[in-house]
Amino acid sequence: MKASQFFIATLKEAPADAEVVSHQLMMRAGMIKRLGAGIYNYMPMGLRVIRKVEAILREEMVRAGAVELLMPVVQPAELWQETGRFEKMGPELMRVKDRHERDFIIQPTSEEVVTDIARQELRSYKQLPKNFFHIQTKFRDERRPRFGVMRGREFTMKDAYSFDRDAEAAGRSYEQMFAAYLKIFDRLGLQYRAVAADTGAIGGDRSHEFQVIAETGEDAIVYCPTSDYAANIELAEALPLGPERAAPAEALAQVATPSTSSCADVAALLGLPIERTVKSLVLASDTLDETGHPVKTQLWLLLVRGDHELNEVKAGKVELPDGSGLKAGFRFATAAEIEAAFGSKPGSLGPVGVKGVKVVADRTVARMSDFVCGANVPEAHLRGVNWGRDLPEPDAVADLRNVVAGDPSPDGKGVLAIQRGIEVGHVFYLGTKYSKAMNATFLDETGKPRLFEMGCYGIGVTRILGAAIEQNHDGRGIVWPASIAPFQVAVCPIGYDRSEAVKAAADALHAELLAAGVDAILDDRGERPGAMFADWELIGVPQRVVLSDRGLKEGQVELQGRREAAATSCPVAEAAAQLRARLVA
Amino acid sequence: MKASQFFIATLKEAPADAEVVSHQLMMRAGMIKRLGAGIYNYMPMGLRVIRKVEAILREEMVRAGAVELLMPVVQPAELWQETGRFEKMGPELMRVKDRHERDFIIQPTSEEVVTDIARQELRSYKQLPKNFFHIQTKFRDERRPRFGVMRGREFTMKDAYSFDRDAEAAGRSYEQMFAAYLKIFDRLGLQYRAVAADTGAIGGDRSHEFQVIAETGEDAIVYCPTSDYAANIELAEALPLGPERAAPAEALAQVATPSTSSCADVAALLGLPIERTVKSLVLASDTLDETGHPVKTQLWLLLVRGDHELNEVKAGKVELPDGSGLKAGFRFATAAEIEAAFGSKPGSLGPVGVKGVKVVADRTVARMSDFVCGANVPEAHLRGVNWGRDLPEPDAVADLRNVVAGDPSPDGKGVLAIQRGIEVGHVFYLGTKYSKAMNATFLDETGKPRLFEMGCYGIGVTRILGAAIEQNHDGRGIVWPASIAPFQVAVCPIGYDRSEAVKAAADALHAELLAAGVDAILDDRGERPGAMFADWELIGVPQRVVLSDRGLKEGQVELQGRREAAATSCPVAEAAAQLRARLVA
Repeated sequence: MKASQFFIATLKEAPADAEVVSHQLMMRAGMIKRLGAGIYNYMPMGLRVIRKVEAILREEMVRAGAVELLMPVVQPAELWQETGRFEKMGPELMRVKDRHERDFIIQPTSEEVVTDIARQELRSYKQLPKNFFHIQTKFRDERRPRFGVMRGREFTMKDAYSFDRDAEAAGRSYEQMFAAYLKIFDRLGLQYRAVAADTGAIGGDRSHEFQVIAETGEDAIVYCPTSDYAANIELAEALPLGPERAAPAEALAQVATPSTSSCADVAALLGLPIERTVKSLVLASDTLDETGHPVKTQLWLLLVRGDHELNEVKAGKVELPDGSGLKAGFRFATAAEIEAAFGSKPGSLGPVGVKGVKVVADRTVARMSDFVCGANVPEAHLRGVNWGRDLPEPDAVADLRNVVAGDPSPDGKGVLAIQRGIEVGHVFYLGTKYSKAMNATFLDETGKPRLFEMGCYGIGVTRILGAAIEQNHDGRGIVWPASIAPFQVAVCPIGYDRSEAVKAAADALHAELLAAGVDAILDDRGERPGAMFADWELIGVPQRVVLSDRGLKEGQVELQGRREAAATSCPVAEAAAQLRARLVA
Repeated sequence: MKASQFFIATLKEAPADAEVVSHQLMMRAGMIKRLGAGIYNYMPMGLRVIRKVEAILREEMVRAGAVELLMPVVQPAELWQETGRFEKMGPELMRVKDRHERDFIIQPTSEEVVTDIARQELRSYKQLPKNFFHIQTKFRDERRPRFGVMRGREFTMKDAYSFDRDAEAAGRSYEQMFAAYLKIFDRLGLQYRAVAADTGAIGGDRSHEFQVIAETGEDAIVYCPTSDYAANIELAEALPLGPERAAPAEALAQVATPSTSSCADVAALLGLPIERTVKSLVLASDTLDETGHPVKTQLWLLLVRGDHELNEVKAGKVELPDGSGLKAGFRFATAAEIEAAFGSKPGSLGPVGVKGVKVVADRTVARMSDFVCGANVPEAHLRGVNWGRDLPEPDAVADLRNVVAGDPSPDGKGVLAIQRGIEVGHVFYLGTKYSKAMNATFLDETGKPRLFEMGCYGIGVTRILGAAIEQNHDGRGIVWPASIAPFQVAVCPIGYDRSEAVKAAADALHAELLAAGVDAILDDRGERPGAMFADWELIGVPQRVVLSDRGLKEGQVELQGRREAAATSCPVAEAAAQLRARLVA
């Protein structure tokens, strides 16, 4: 490709609405162009990256035994009504009526359609396992689209769906996809972690997120540097800290704590470490009647150590021995509900003397003795509080908190570290959630219909661009991994329009690179060297070769990798071979 | 690819709603699967054909200097309001509101978005010419979707848009695209014609349709077998038939024509050839006030020879010397309007004695003398009618009719023939229609803003599948051109699961074909030969090679092209080479 036949449009400044570096650099490098909120034109430079990502995904999916098809963007509502998602999903599901006033949706995902295909096409156990995938445009009407392609409304995803005869076979499909994902992210040249993720309503432990490591990531991922434990923060198990609970040593005492608004304030005022304090959070669960109106509300007091944070996903799993719990959903209690139950406002709440409220202690809190908590009296706390002596044992002890760096790893093999990540892939064991809702069955050996065991496996194609840039950039621009760079080599002649020798050498080297299968672009625009180099650094092409009259007189060209501080001279005859070697390395 | 790793799902019977053979065969061959009216899943077998078509389009577009980008499916209404199409287009434009009640459309085409890109990105004459294309999902909410992928609602199109500095340069871009389209349709292996088409409101002669020849085509295409004239029926010029008008020979006479309802009936009753009769058609044009209400209606009497048919596109071009005409739009007159003006009902209308109605004669009618027409009296006609003597010369003479086979070619080089075609591509010179509406300008050498001269160039990717099948099928199924067949060769071992020798030879031949770049599928399903062969004939794979124990004992395999009646023996060692040669032939 010659630059004059392509379309290069770099900008000095990113638009003001570009908040994150990947968005800024994609705009500046002319990869995307905003059409509306969260809706982008993929310009030629950006589309080349997308196509390279897609090609890698396609190859590895087929290698792993998946079969490509293409499901529509506009899907009839009927199937989505079968699973109830047409009603249940919020406004992020874009709904549209056709000319006959029939309901349709713009697909955000395709479980319903693929399950409909399977229940018609996969009639016998002999056809299983089967894994269908497609790479398709999706739409999610995000409330606040932002960060460019990282949280857009229209985007491209690869999604695969596996159908198996039983849970064991579904487990094998899951493992195959997991292994394919490792290959894919290796080939994409990204630093990433596969982390265990919460399975929500489906249950089980079969869900992993693939997170690209980047300081700017929205997700916190937890790992153990001395073992292979990795999970996202929602799931990562927090073991109890400290030794078994000690016997009480202090007497219970109420202390005035004016003008404190946090456990840190209280600890400072009392001259105690924050690890001696307990934080109180009040949740509410409503029992609904048949029409969906609340008929009874139960308050819950959740306790975590003063320096810890409540993990709402874990809170949602709280269950008492009597079967009651927060699994059916919860909300934060209102100020009025709290005052009615505790006789005090948030800021000095605590578990001592409370009636009619279920008390759930985090594992660490259950081990504490002589601790400090709110007194349920304005601007007052209790110190020397002890379970069993000053208040009953909690109704339940549970893992309620986010882990923090330095916590023991749940596998017992070290301590946890936390880093930021961008979720670009997800593998999920679905079980029979969709096959049951849509009565999707096959006939087994005995001729009996059985529900498919399903899995789904997504990769955000366009989001990968953003994540790759968040991970790989510097002050001059993007630094693409070679496998997905829009071009692998920029051939930069100085004086292409003036010097016959430069033109001839540049044309020859360009042709030689193309013939060797290197995706090289020849910059024949006639830009000045400074502007030309700045463009290719901004765009992030991995290797650059500069040809000039002065160098060619000595038979030399200059090679420079995007991450290298300086250029290296190289005989012109060896340039193609050296560039190929650099791209493989 | 092995069949067991792919997805093959053939059907004995097509569903009842499949009216045309391409729809029936695509359903039976498992290429598509209906999801809703005009909305299909592209199953693995069909998607392979789509991808091959796309690859050819992409290659030839890039070779012709076009640059690929990707514009969104969901587009903000604002741009469509700039050109007025948001309001003007009918319900085939799918409109949707987002969660903030903002208007969007699901793109049926992308002139607005690409013009918006151009007015921002192409700022200088130095950046011209530029041609952007994309291959994208489109949606048109057809009133009556049918014929499978031929008239679906969701479909894939390649569309390109050229931007030029002036009409002359735009002409060159048009010619380049025209030439690229010839290469594309040649490579697709289709019999087609490029025919001149009407340019509607844009004017000029720069519009061509690419029509795949097929008896089942919806379009009539006109061509001259002895020259290169070709046009669609809307545009093809009808020269006047017969010699210059002869002097009157008969006296005017009213004759009773009871129970006649057509010119053919009248001619038969009078014992005259139908070529002596004239058909009367009454149109109306309304003058509207500012609010769009009609304030004045003009009736028009259009006359064509009894055996000819009115061409409504041509009628829409009628213009009188005083500037009045039908260009602003027309409708057929109502029964009441006709009775008020003519004193008679349709069936015996004619131009003699009519007042207040503009009379337009087809070129052939203007040459007729002693003709027959309605008498404006129920069940009566006039014969011996002559221009000038019995009625004034017509207000205008124009080309009003469809050509018929045997008409003289407008280029004077023979007579016209008519065949049926399926429109799969269209090139169109747009001029400044969109750039003017959207004020899309660039700066010329003098720094003055000038409007882009534009062209648009579409190819219906998914429709090509249907058209290719309409043109290439037989009683056993589809006969794909080799360039777009889902697989080029089916390797069919008999007893793959029973015979070591067959399995080894089939695996080796399959591997040899793949290594040679032949897209071969190995049918390892263990089907009986009859069912296996029927599947590949239905699916339409161009070449088949059968391996059996009996043949292998003598070192032979059997080759059979999809169009061949019988198989040919071939030494197993030569099979790969012979198959390659057959695919190129």
